[in-house]
Amino acid sequence: MLESLKKQVYEANMQLPKLNLVTFTWGNVSGIDRRQGLFVIKPSGVAYENLEPEDMVVVNLKGEVVEGKMNPSSDTPTHTVLYNKFPKIGGIVHTHSPWAVAFASANMDIPALNTTAADTFYGDIPVSEPLTETEIQDAYEEDTGKVIVKTFQDHNIDPEAVPGVLVSQHGPFTWGSTPDKAVYNAKVLEVVAEMDYHALTLTHANIEVPQYLLDKHYNRKHGKNAYYGQNKQRRIQFAKK
Amino acid sequence: MLESLKKQVYEANMQLPKLNLVTFTWGNVSGIDRRQGLFVIKPSGVAYENLEPEDMVVVNLKGEVVEGKMNPSSDTPTHTVLYNKFPKIGGIVHTHSPWAVAFASANMDIPALNTTAADTFYGDIPVSEPLTETEIQDAYEEDTGKVIVKTFQDHNIDPEAVPGVLVSQHGPFTWGSTPDKAVYNAKVLEVVAEMDYHALTLTHANIEVPQYLLDKHYNRKHGKNAYYGQNKQRRIQFAKK
Amino acid sequence: MLESLKKQVYEANMQLPKLNLVTFTWGNVSGIDRRQGLFVIKPSGVAYENLEPEDMVVVNLKGEVVEGKMNPSSDTPTHTVLYNKFPKIGGIVHTHSPWAVAFASANMDIPALNTTAADTFYGDIPVSEPLTETEIQDAYEEDTGKVIVKTFQDHNIDPEAVPGVLVSQHGPFTWGSTPDKAVYNAKVLEVVAEMDYHALTLTHANIEVPQYLLDKHYNRKHGKNAYYGQNKQRRIQFAKK
Amino acid sequence: MLESLKKQVYEANMQLPKLNLVTFTWGNVSGIDRRQGLFVIKPSGVAYENLEPEDMVVVNLKGEVVEGKMNPSSDTPTHTVLYNKFPKIGGIVHTHSPWAVAFASANMDIPALNTTAADTFYGDIPVSEPLTETEIQDAYEEDTGKVIVKTFQDHNIDPEAVPGVLVSQHGPFTWGSTPDKAVYNAKVLEVVAEMDYHALTLTHANIEVPQYLLDKHYNRKHGKNAYYGQNKQRRIQFAKK
Repeated sequence: MLESLKKQVYEANMQLPKLNLVTFTWGNVSGIDRRQGLFVIKPSGVAYENLEPEDMVVVNLKGEVVEGKMNPSSDTPTHTVLYNKFPKIGGIVHTHSPWAVAFASANMDIPALNTTAADTFYGDIPVSEPLTETEIQDAYEEDTGKVIVKTFQDHNIDPEAVPGVLVSQHGPFTWGSTPDKAVYNAKVLEVVAEMDYHALTLTHANIEVPQYLLDKHYNRKHGKNAYYGQNKQRRIQFAKK
Repeated sequence: MLESLKKQVYEANMQLPKLNLVTFTWGNVSGIDRRQGLFVIKPSGVAYENLEPEDMVVVNLKGEVVEGKMNPSSDTPTHTVLYNKFPKIGGIVHTHSPWAVAFASANMDIPALNTTAADTFYGDIPVSEPLTETEIQDAYEEDTGKVIVKTFQDHNIDPEAVPGVLVSQHGPFTWGSTPDKAVYNAKVLEVVAEMDYHALTLTHANIEVPQYLLDKHYNRKHGKNAYYGQNKQRRIQFAKK
Repeated sequence: MLESLKKQVYEANMQLPKLNLVTFTWGNVSGIDRRQGLFVIKPSGVAYENLEPEDMVVVNLKGEVVEGKMNPSSDTPTHTVLYNKFPKIGGIVHTHSPWAVAFASANMDIPALNTTAADTFYGDIPVSEPLTETEIQDAYEEDTGKVIVKTFQDHNIDPEAVPGVLVSQHGPFTWGSTPDKAVYNAKVLEVVAEMDYHALTLTHANIEVPQYLLDKHYNRKHGKNAYYGQNKQRRIQFAKK
Repeated sequence: MLESLKKQVYEANMQLPKLNLVTFTWGNVSGIDRRQGLFVIKPSGVAYENLEPEDMVVVNLKGEVVEGKMNPSSDTPTHTVLYNKFPKIGGIVHTHSPWAVAFASANMDIPALNTTAADTFYGDIPVSEPLTETEIQDAYEEDTGKVIVKTFQDHNIDPEAVPGVLVSQHGPFTWGSTPDKAVYNAKVLEVVAEMDYHALTLTHANIEVPQYLLDKHYNRKHGKNAYYGQNKQRRIQFAKK
């Protein structure tokens, strides 16, 4: 069942330790088959070294396990909400990468301060509101998804233009048209958080980039007339070694 | 004598350099056989590359060497006190990991600021009082153990719920039900210290997480109805490469 | 066509990930054959792992592709301007290395605070003015080159003595008499930015080095009577592993 | 000539990149044969990957090359002064390790804030005065040695008890009874600088450790009744891989 997607999701998961985005098992990637309305996700709490493509768990859009010997990631309800509410995304990543968690702990957006950010995120990466006591006690992982969706609705942000968020006191979720692109965005978010930390502690000046720089950089990579790379449908190329 | 435990303690010690927790020989792991009242610990000042399972030293709960060709870790009296006073722990780790030592040098707790902390530590990781002149001159390593125990008693902290401490001006000790879990907790403590440093220098707002978030995260991994991972008795899975 | 230069430029590009200067494809190196008025540059958006010497693209000094199956780096117009305006340079590097981007985001020069800087950069590494809206919308990459040239003209800096710059809100460009030396300078710039960040956040004292220290260090490596290394024409020696 | 010492000095030099203490060729180790009054030092500006034991240069205590095909390190006059003025040291290391250079740039001592420092350095690691214009123009590398000696004389510090220094605006020199121990001390100095940076930026409290802690830690490793490690004459054990 969905063997090709399982392999793709497995490989995207294996990129997380290679890109220094996870400690132990603290991260997961999923990918969706929109036609069948099913997504594939990493099992919960399994070491990356022991992971195999066939360990991936198949889940439907109600969050129910459809196939798989192991428990799916405990964050499965969050993924379910995002696939339902962001209908154009094809893959989701969650990590506890340390620079991103520092901003989430400080309850701060990761602002757009340079072209590295602007090439991938069309504006600041928002931090959500902290979850309330009820949200945490009630249906914690599902409510995490709802709080993410609310963040984008309240601030009128397009989740395709800004493909990531910080959940306050927790950490980053990113997404993309494929699992690979969601992983790429998770790495960019972490690198940008690191750069921003150092820039923000070097100066107290207002260093947000102007809108026209955001427009230029985002469109040269993602717009109709994109001219970066070898073609517009390029697949992210990760290291093979 | 205790060959299986020696192997387990040896392997836990070898995780320390792999997890980037030690420079040179600055770290040690021990594990206890509660039935026999004997624990096994790394020899003092030996490079990890030259370590073999049979180099591990066997010590009784009075801190006396029972078997072994080499001197045990100079921190053996600290381990002895902790095994006597914390009767449910099965393994202990001490390192000089740099982010943890920075907090110990600053004489500051590592506060609970995010879910990464809350998944493992049910509250702030406390820093002890600095040792007094008499404690240092008298029975330094034993007094280090006593100061740790006093920290948990004075603040009414359960050492099973908060499985680690900073000794002021010195560094971290962590523990767990097995040597492996004590190593896992040593890595979490270091990662959380790194995240906290950056969060605390980004903002002056009060960013401690609320009690209900601590309750939720700790219980979903460690409580009666834990639902993270594949089962409640899971052994930590470290990389094999 | 220019097979030897292609190999040299390829190898210089491959140093960027080895020296931890690039994430994904965010960097490029070019090298010029001054006699033929042609330069060779990395193709756009190709993973370093998949790069081959024959993928390098040949470009003339008007910025037109003369040979190559792939699109050249999107930064090609910037390289073109620099080769035209800085007639003695033989190689150019652009990266998004994180410490350098932090200074570019903060809109700050990388000041000369120690001998590590002075050995390579004969004074502060300047940050450019931010590009204007017109410059960004008009001919962005070409205008980036023009802004760099203007920075050196306005401050009367010799680009051979200070072989690098930060483009504000963007990142570093470095150059040298060969592609190898441009890569060397890119690494020095990044290391110096890291050292400077920590020095500047440790103290508020004026810690710029005096002119006579700059004179001494620069001349002992680059002056007529240079006495560092085995000879004055030494080629940079990179690790072979 | 001095083949055994050359091999020892070669191997100590090769530890510098393994311990992440050097970028490119920015570091050197020497070792002395006190009976013959000759020391052996790394050649200038040679990549570590290309270094061989027979490349080491033999120098006498006037700083004259006695044997060797290559130029000795440009820092040779500094080593010469230190061997003459500190008669008990057997090896010297100089690096541009980044945390140490940050403190040297900020013109700050590396204070003793924890037991990691106290195990190796019996007090703060001092920063020298900046060299004067005359000292820099006159006999720069020799004057660097003289400024180091003056630092220890002015503050009445024993160079065996505090085996390292920061030259202001430049970087660290360390020494020891052997080249290996000088390398060990170079790594400790760098790690302690990193820990200190983070402690000093976390708090404004006075966090210097008390004298009795310095006494205890230094003596338990280096005093008459040292009890750390397997014996008092232990050779530092570096990783073989």
